[in-house]
Amino acid sequence: MRLVRILHQGQARWGQLQQDTVLLSSGMGEAPTGETVPFDPAALLAPAEPSKIVCVGRNYLDHIRELGNDTGDLPKEPGIFLKGPNTLAEPGGTVVRPDWTDNFHFEGELALVMGKQARNLSPETALDHVAGFTCGLDLTARDLQKTDLQWFRAKAADRFCPLGPWLETDFNPADVQVQTRVNGETRQNGRTAQMIFPVVDILVYITRFVTLEAGDVVLTGTPDGVGALQSGDKVEVEVEGIGVLTTLIG
Amino acid sequence: MRLVRILHQGQARWGQLQQDTVLLSSGMGEAPTGETVPFDPAALLAPAEPSKIVCVGRNYLDHIRELGNDTGDLPKEPGIFLKGPNTLAEPGGTVVRPDWTDNFHFEGELALVMGKQARNLSPETALDHVAGFTCGLDLTARDLQKTDLQWFRAKAADRFCPLGPWLETDFNPADVQVQTRVNGETRQNGRTAQMIFPVVDILVYITRFVTLEAGDVVLTGTPDGVGALQSGDKVEVEVEGIGVLTTLIG
Repeated sequence: MRLVRILHQGQARWGQLQQDTVLLSSGMGEAPTGETVPFDPAALLAPAEPSKIVCVGRNYLDHIRELGNDTGDLPKEPGIFLKGPNTLAEPGGTVVRPDWTDNFHFEGELALVMGKQARNLSPETALDHVAGFTCGLDLTARDLQKTDLQWFRAKAADRFCPLGPWLETDFNPADVQVQTRVNGETRQNGRTAQMIFPVVDILVYITRFVTLEAGDVVLTGTPDGVGALQSGDKVEVEVEGIGVLTTLIG
Repeated sequence: MRLVRILHQGQARWGQLQQDTVLLSSGMGEAPTGETVPFDPAALLAPAEPSKIVCVGRNYLDHIRELGNDTGDLPKEPGIFLKGPNTLAEPGGTVVRPDWTDNFHFEGELALVMGKQARNLSPETALDHVAGFTCGLDLTARDLQKTDLQWFRAKAADRFCPLGPWLETDFNPADVQVQTRVNGETRQNGRTAQMIFPVVDILVYITRFVTLEAGDVVLTGTPDGVGALQSGDKVEVEVEGIGVLTTLIG
């Protein structure tokens, strides 16, 4: 099932997308209320209302290598960082290239949204706590990642996390293609089977330290092929079995 | 005025503290509804409902030096990192010392809570966007700060941010004492005038990159004197003109 979050009569509403119709509901994953509206892609919002966005860095070996971070040993534990809810941007939206970075990078990723509170998850039941999967664009000021104390400006500035277009609830994250295109040209083309820490391992690890709430977003890391964006670029993140997240760089 | 957030009949409620009485209100800084309850310190909750907690690292030179991070140059810009809302803990509460750190540190700080949305603040009006000031305890797994990719486990684990006891709305942050005591012994004793980046500069800097929402928390950095905590310790953070935030280590 595809869960969408849309702007409807000035309000953010959740619903189920069925063909060209949205069956509105009272919240993420709730049963339809009976209200229906025609599907309009321009009305899509980021499909999450998180208290936090928890991200994995360096989860694909070829990406570690392309940034010169290969020490010869694979990471023993996932490298985690945070973005705030201020980073969310809607599918099809425009993100203005900040004037304070000289190297504004795309990182296409598989993302997921939690469906219920999760603490100390076990591998066996971790995925039961996920509401659905979607596409994420982890925008990154690559230059400031190196110079700042922590990845605050580099990762957590306003609208640095386009997300969508919807949540796919029937989805197996084990081995799907994650592709990023810029102006139609394929720049990243990985498979989730290449993750150093698969989705289940990520959830088990994070929830040892942090309680995830329903609505919280997890970004699972990016394959190799990252690069710089310029104003006017069109970025598409496509995850096999989900759809395409399009972002325009203003 | 002192704004408190308390647990009242099973619900989190905001109010004004006047002597031994809480005048309940419908939200942070709202006018009293007419309901009153006797003040009970055991009912206090962390006085904030943030979408994010934005923290300044290395904002006091003597603290930079004690951790061996003095490069000879003062930081040119504030070093910022994030904690999520999961880190909040109530005044008087117990925080269990995690078994996954060998060096669990206290960092007493002046904290503030935003009263309205803020983006690109000017120095002249920055403080108008603050609802009030309080005491914060930035709990830190010092060992993991060095070994992890980013300060996730080190700073953002559940209950790593005790906050309170209340918001003081009539407060000048320019030059007040910030003191931390462990089991009654004074361990940190700084003044906010020693900050490398004063409160106004911090707010102007953060909001160049990130929109702060009403309820968001800012921690302004810790003076020197940080050290390790053991189970059974009692930590008190006192900010002159505000009050004392007490935390028990379990």
